[in-house]
Amino acid sequence: MNKIVLAQIDTIAGNIKINAKKIINCIEKAKENNADLIIFPELALMGYPFGDIFIRHKSIIERQLKALDEIAAKTENITALVGFAEPTKDANKKPFYNSVAVLQNGKIINIVRKRLLPNYSEFNDYRYFEPSDCVSQILELNGERYGILVCEDSFNDKSFFKEECIYDVDPVAELMKQNPTTLINCSCSPSRTGKEYIKNALFSSIARKYGVNYIYVNQAGYADNLSFDGTSRIYNKNGELDLRAKSFEEDFVITDNLTGIINELPVGMQKKVEVQNFNLDYTSDLDRTYKSIVFGIQEYFRKNGFKKAVLGLSGGLDSSICAVLLADALGKENVWGISMPSRITSSESKNDAKILAENLGIHFFEVPLAEGIDAVKSLLNFAFSNVDTEKYEKSTTIENLQARLRATILWSVSNEHKQMLPIATSDKSEAYIGYATVNGDMSGGFAPIADVTKTKLFALGDFLNENREQKNAIPQAILEKPPGAELKINPKTGKTVCAEEENMPYEFLDEIIWFVENCGYGFEDLMEHKFYYETKNCLTIEQKEEWIRKYFWKSKCAVYKWHIIPPSVVVDMHSINSVEYRQPIISCVY
Amino acid sequence: MNKIVLAQIDTIAGNIKINAKKIINCIEKAKENNADLIIFPELALMGYPFGDIFIRHKSIIERQLKALDEIAAKTENITALVGFAEPTKDANKKPFYNSVAVLQNGKIINIVRKRLLPNYSEFNDYRYFEPSDCVSQILELNGERYGILVCEDSFNDKSFFKEECIYDVDPVAELMKQNPTTLINCSCSPSRTGKEYIKNALFSSIARKYGVNYIYVNQAGYADNLSFDGTSRIYNKNGELDLRAKSFEEDFVITDNLTGIINELPVGMQKKVEVQNFNLDYTSDLDRTYKSIVFGIQEYFRKNGFKKAVLGLSGGLDSSICAVLLADALGKENVWGISMPSRITSSESKNDAKILAENLGIHFFEVPLAEGIDAVKSLLNFAFSNVDTEKYEKSTTIENLQARLRATILWSVSNEHKQMLPIATSDKSEAYIGYATVNGDMSGGFAPIADVTKTKLFALGDFLNENREQKNAIPQAILEKPPGAELKINPKTGKTVCAEEENMPYEFLDEIIWFVENCGYGFEDLMEHKFYYETKNCLTIEQKEEWIRKYFWKSKCAVYKWHIIPPSVVVDMHSINSVEYRQPIISCVY
Repeated sequence: MNKIVLAQIDTIAGNIKINAKKIINCIEKAKENNADLIIFPELALMGYPFGDIFIRHKSIIERQLKALDEIAAKTENITALVGFAEPTKDANKKPFYNSVAVLQNGKIINIVRKRLLPNYSEFNDYRYFEPSDCVSQILELNGERYGILVCEDSFNDKSFFKEECIYDVDPVAELMKQNPTTLINCSCSPSRTGKEYIKNALFSSIARKYGVNYIYVNQAGYADNLSFDGTSRIYNKNGELDLRAKSFEEDFVITDNLTGIINELPVGMQKKVEVQNFNLDYTSDLDRTYKSIVFGIQEYFRKNGFKKAVLGLSGGLDSSICAVLLADALGKENVWGISMPSRITSSESKNDAKILAENLGIHFFEVPLAEGIDAVKSLLNFAFSNVDTEKYEKSTTIENLQARLRATILWSVSNEHKQMLPIATSDKSEAYIGYATVNGDMSGGFAPIADVTKTKLFALGDFLNENREQKNAIPQAILEKPPGAELKINPKTGKTVCAEEENMPYEFLDEIIWFVENCGYGFEDLMEHKFYYETKNCLTIEQKEEWIRKYFWKSKCAVYKWHIIPPSVVVDMHSINSVEYRQPIISCVY
Repeated sequence: MNKIVLAQIDTIAGNIKINAKKIINCIEKAKENNADLIIFPELALMGYPFGDIFIRHKSIIERQLKALDEIAAKTENITALVGFAEPTKDANKKPFYNSVAVLQNGKIINIVRKRLLPNYSEFNDYRYFEPSDCVSQILELNGERYGILVCEDSFNDKSFFKEECIYDVDPVAELMKQNPTTLINCSCSPSRTGKEYIKNALFSSIARKYGVNYIYVNQAGYADNLSFDGTSRIYNKNGELDLRAKSFEEDFVITDNLTGIINELPVGMQKKVEVQNFNLDYTSDLDRTYKSIVFGIQEYFRKNGFKKAVLGLSGGLDSSICAVLLADALGKENVWGISMPSRITSSESKNDAKILAENLGIHFFEVPLAEGIDAVKSLLNFAFSNVDTEKYEKSTTIENLQARLRATILWSVSNEHKQMLPIATSDKSEAYIGYATVNGDMSGGFAPIADVTKTKLFALGDFLNENREQKNAIPQAILEKPPGAELKINPKTGKTVCAEEENMPYEFLDEIIWFVENCGYGFEDLMEHKFYYETKNCLTIEQKEEWIRKYFWKSKCAVYKWHIIPPSVVVDMHSINSVEYRQPIISCVY
């Protein structure tokens, strides 16, 4: 049996020098360990996702080919599978094939090209790649026959996906005609809600169906709003998981019998997999959500040369969760939490923010805003007809002004401190209905929770309090009070207006979002849909219709804001992050 | 000969009701005029560009098909060509064909599908469409044979594009085998620098080459950062332009002999076209640039329900040009110019801003910022080790604070006034090197000049002063002084630092930008390139290298800002607007 290395590396798009060096280092290490074969992820040498960079920076292409030769030269007594963007050199074709070079004893002995080019969701393969014209995908090595696949080529199994197959051809079925004993899948597959369960069941079923071993090598890293989780693995001929590399971390796994360490499995996932439906509830996705965001923060900061973060701490849910994620990602000493109370901020909120910061051990400052707001307000007198009236004080203008002044302070602090980024704390539920302020809470150098809905954030809060080494870092009050930006007072109650009064219950809103994102529900579908909220609350048909209409109206007006969300981490299976979903601002969906 | 209508309409993506009503109104009007044939643009019924909206809003698809039947019912005694997104109804295929329905006497008598699916630049056809499986593209009508093409299908003529053809097949050549007497091209083609000249030469050469009439019907409108210029036209069998509809405006042109009014031709364009190279300089593109932006502003505001704009007037070039464009687009009564001088703003700048506003007749206010800045500064003391030092006063923090406070004021004013948008005044040269402030001058609800370089803006200033009805609206001083944000003082000169001191001459920078965008130049190419700046100035090789390296370094750090540019108008043939070009923030191109 061959000794094999799964080289689950992290790359940077276009940074050929760094990527090549990392690949060569791995090959050297594999040779030291007398490995026969080392496998890298899809597009490892070019780095992925690379967007349009090569269109305007053509020299990258030459540099990549030169580097591939240099890597090949290092493959004496070893075989390496290295993903790269292979120029088609034909003006009538797309610029590249998405290829895996088979390097052996100093030479490129074969090139395997990707056949299925995904062009949905975050994938734009067809913008850059020609489909494979199908050369041999078999690598023979010491009596073993390895069948090489590139990512999507393994995602069209007709017995698994049935009527959901989106391509005619199944490259695995075709490849099996060449009698491989082991399949190898080189991938760049970002982590999304539920995807791990699908991949696990799919790969296992392919191994079992064809009676072959299945080796999956995935990139670990973050770029362009996507967290790639690595989690490379091997299934045996019975479809059993025999090896599982680290998640959200680079890894270098050596195996001489296709088995090894199985790193921590997600909730509900079994070593022996039968094809099954996973009804994902929050519980089974919280750990992944946490890891995926923490990893995204670490990678974004590191790769862009930042070390510290500053965020506003309101004593509310969003900023509290962000503070925990940042502290865990960057270290408590690198996080600055600033409480910026205005005249209407409650003493409870101020107190909760402070306790949270103390619990986490992050830097904490309190900066009362009142005088700053007054000064800016006085600059605005020229533009207002109703200055000095109660209406003025309660206007959207003054609400937003507070949020914008807070962001201005955060950006100023980040300007003054080297390698520090301000953090946008707004969440996905708010993004959908535009309930976040431009240049305010949705402004920042990074937006950790922009793809997490409010109800999931509440669950995540409980999860973090239970599962972090330090228990209950988030004060219980924060997890219990109704969300609200504390930007204005309800004259009837004398208290700050909570968000659900202005919009609708988050539980209801988040269920709309889920069905729009995952099932393409329109107005009629939603009206017919029995909401979970309805099973627990008395809801008139008029109220239901009002909320659904409000959702459509508010989300129509919010599209502009979706286009300017700061860098973030796509967490859910679907998102409004522009890396995945693009809705023109001028459009009508309802 | 048939009486033909070119229905150059403006549509809204997904707004089936409005689009269908407009199409039906045009058909009714055509029938009143006894027309035989009416031609609409590509995807007229669905509206274009529609991005991903149908993926999450599936009911749009059904509504579109229903509307198509309703439109067909209106075609007694007339034939209508209506572009629509035709569902493939096959899970193994992309969701749609990009089709033109041939409607006649109440029925859909044929459907012509697009063969060539562009997937470069702003086009993402392959994300949504299957290529045509080639049914008949001929419409026979009263003895004439019309060959129907959809946009890109006419853009692969091998004798015209030669080695730049990007597809194997030329659908026009294939279609000609069916002996049409007239070609009809239904398009959605956005306006870009130089594109009009290419289209004119291409269509003319096709008409001449095959000895057929050529009818081109293009959408007029704006969406998703793209201005569609309309400018539908007809060429005769000799390749001569015989009819030219309005540009950047809807039009309804009736012709009974394929000739008619030829609306204003751009500089250098002839009625009789030979294939030619157009060396576009600024002069021949300024009028189009102006119209394209003004149209974009009008459409964006109208379609989103806004009427008024507020912008900061610094007395500099960028804000002055924006003020003129806004006044012309929205009417002077709908534009608010706010001068917001800080302590270091020169009296000249204040004065220039005021004169400009008076010339244009827009609303004008002067709001001295000093006290507001002081108040916010005092809130920041907690974060700074060097408060009360000279260094603090001159820090980037304080520079940016001024810009951010200005934007806060503009957003506040827009909040307070109904249907008002704040304007981002930063330009393309600044965007490339990140010389614009997040939440400051690059923040707004619309960014009119985000795709216009500084040198082109100077030329545009002269052009506007000469060619607008009101001459010399922009004070000459604004067009002559060196650009600079007036955010800090140079201690040596005692004057505010101008931008070229901090960066490099704009003429040099803009030439880099041009060659990167249009020719994919890298570092070595630029070092070898003889800059126009070099022909006029003494430039050492060290200085040249320093500037080029500075460009690459600064643009690498600026990528984050490219992702959050507000809605704008793509003007040049290439852009950094994300509708066209996407570079991951984590990437390396140099």
